[in-house]
Amino acid sequence: MIRFPAVDAFRGGEGLIRVIGHRGARGLVPENSMLGFEFAMSSGVPLLEFDVVMTADNVPVITHNHRLHAPTFRDHSGHFLTTEPKIAHLTWAQLQDYDIGRIDGASVYGQRFPDQAQIDGIRVPSLRELLQVTSQDRFSSAHLMLEIKSDPAFAHDIEYRRLLVRQVVAEVHASGLETRTLLHSFDWSLLTECQHQAPEMPTSFLTQLPENEEDIGEDSIMCISPDFSVQQESIPELVVNAGGRLWCPYLNDVTRENVAKAHALGLIVAVWTVNEPSDIHRMIDLGVDAIVSDYPGRVQRCLADQGISWLVP
Amino acid sequence: MIRFPAVDAFRGGEGLIRVIGHRGARGLVPENSMLGFEFAMSSGVPLLEFDVVMTADNVPVITHNHRLHAPTFRDHSGHFLTTEPKIAHLTWAQLQDYDIGRIDGASVYGQRFPDQAQIDGIRVPSLRELLQVTSQDRFSSAHLMLEIKSDPAFAHDIEYRRLLVRQVVAEVHASGLETRTLLHSFDWSLLTECQHQAPEMPTSFLTQLPENEEDIGEDSIMCISPDFSVQQESIPELVVNAGGRLWCPYLNDVTRENVAKAHALGLIVAVWTVNEPSDIHRMIDLGVDAIVSDYPGRVQRCLADQGISWLVP
Repeated sequence: MIRFPAVDAFRGGEGLIRVIGHRGARGLVPENSMLGFEFAMSSGVPLLEFDVVMTADNVPVITHNHRLHAPTFRDHSGHFLTTEPKIAHLTWAQLQDYDIGRIDGASVYGQRFPDQAQIDGIRVPSLRELLQVTSQDRFSSAHLMLEIKSDPAFAHDIEYRRLLVRQVVAEVHASGLETRTLLHSFDWSLLTECQHQAPEMPTSFLTQLPENEEDIGEDSIMCISPDFSVQQESIPELVVNAGGRLWCPYLNDVTRENVAKAHALGLIVAVWTVNEPSDIHRMIDLGVDAIVSDYPGRVQRCLADQGISWLVP
Repeated sequence: MIRFPAVDAFRGGEGLIRVIGHRGARGLVPENSMLGFEFAMSSGVPLLEFDVVMTADNVPVITHNHRLHAPTFRDHSGHFLTTEPKIAHLTWAQLQDYDIGRIDGASVYGQRFPDQAQIDGIRVPSLRELLQVTSQDRFSSAHLMLEIKSDPAFAHDIEYRRLLVRQVVAEVHASGLETRTLLHSFDWSLLTECQHQAPEMPTSFLTQLPENEEDIGEDSIMCISPDFSVQQESIPELVVNAGGRLWCPYLNDVTRENVAKAHALGLIVAVWTVNEPSDIHRMIDLGVDAIVSDYPGRVQRCLADQGISWLVP
């Protein structure tokens, strides 16, 4: 089995549970912004989760949805959008016209993040920008959980999917960060393409059981995720069989049994998105390797209060 | 009446209420740390409140209490302190031995800030460090609410108090930031000394009525604050008579009447420390000029939700 250095950075252990900043630190700083990533890395959170989508001119950019997300995208006049154009229909230059520094308090989505800083003049970053900043000496401990969002509209367009992976992998290679990057997705067949194109980078498999899904106003991932209900094997077994090194379950899907199973199979278990203190303590108790959170400081506090580290000295 | 540019930066108005980061952004980042100040300034909070105390070798340093605060100071071995040496008895070099990057979750104080990032290797900054960073072009909109903490043990030592003010003022002058700094204190006679030594800098008068004081595990300020109960005039009148330009009341002391009175007298009203959304909305409703908060993003969100700005374009 190949040993991937990037995988070890996400591995927990005795007295060690990792903290992963979700879209930077979405609870405190505009999500998927350079400011959020720099804040996370500066505040003892070198593990970053973020989302990559591709523009019409094939630039990998960092944003969660396939469409401009109306509650966080503002136009020239400073108003939140009322329609949601597709990222795949906009060029990089067009995308830079939108400001992502605020969140609409009138939206359900906005009401979930009442402490988030509100800033003007924040743009969607390219993957390249994040890779360049992460390459700086001051962030040498940073590792990236690079989620590739596969647009359901292109789910059966093999050429498009190859191009998406090619563009992403090319950026990572150009930055020299392939030993510090995980390729991460809900789309398992896309991860197979990643393994094919970039065997030197580990893959990380996201799951969410439909029965535990909550509607949180974001893109549905169900249409591109496997149907686990028809499988004989457990999810950890399926991840291993698919060549994955990390299993990243939704927090309500995690049990003591499936964590033990995953560990027995050599997988790392990184759970998303864990924000409530009671859930954080439950994940600590279940012995997961890593906790993905919008409030990484809150996770650090829960860990510190139990004498658990999140960084290796 | 002299017009102080620094005062205007704290003035509210129609559709405008200022946000002041309390000790940086104490709710999210270790208090009175350079990381906290840089985070606040980077996230649309150019107005910084912080506390200055003087070391044994007369270096103005940024920390709240006169003693090392056990719940936030750790020694070489990484343990929170069990005794609290006085800052005035430690040299600058000795002070640098302590780490202020975490907060003790076992303390009442620590339990107040469950979301604060926990970081190793954070030191007490000098006033000079903050002034130097604030002088950088990228922070040209930053203004400082520099609170001088007067040690009760030196309350009657006129020479010591003059020296404290002299050291602080000298640092501000050396940085050239005297047009961007308020001198701020609970100790009104110390502010008189500030006016004497630095007439080019405005003074900002803190108050807290004893009847509304809550025990929050910090240094008491009562011993150095005037006794308002024996005064004929209202507090805003007393501030104006003492040459103050800002009145900074405790949030529970603010009423529609005293805000109106202060405004009629030409004062700016900056209220501390406002963290709960219900209190933030009450302060907005009362028409204060500025809100000091440990959670400045939360204040931005409350303001944005009402269509109120906190920055002048």
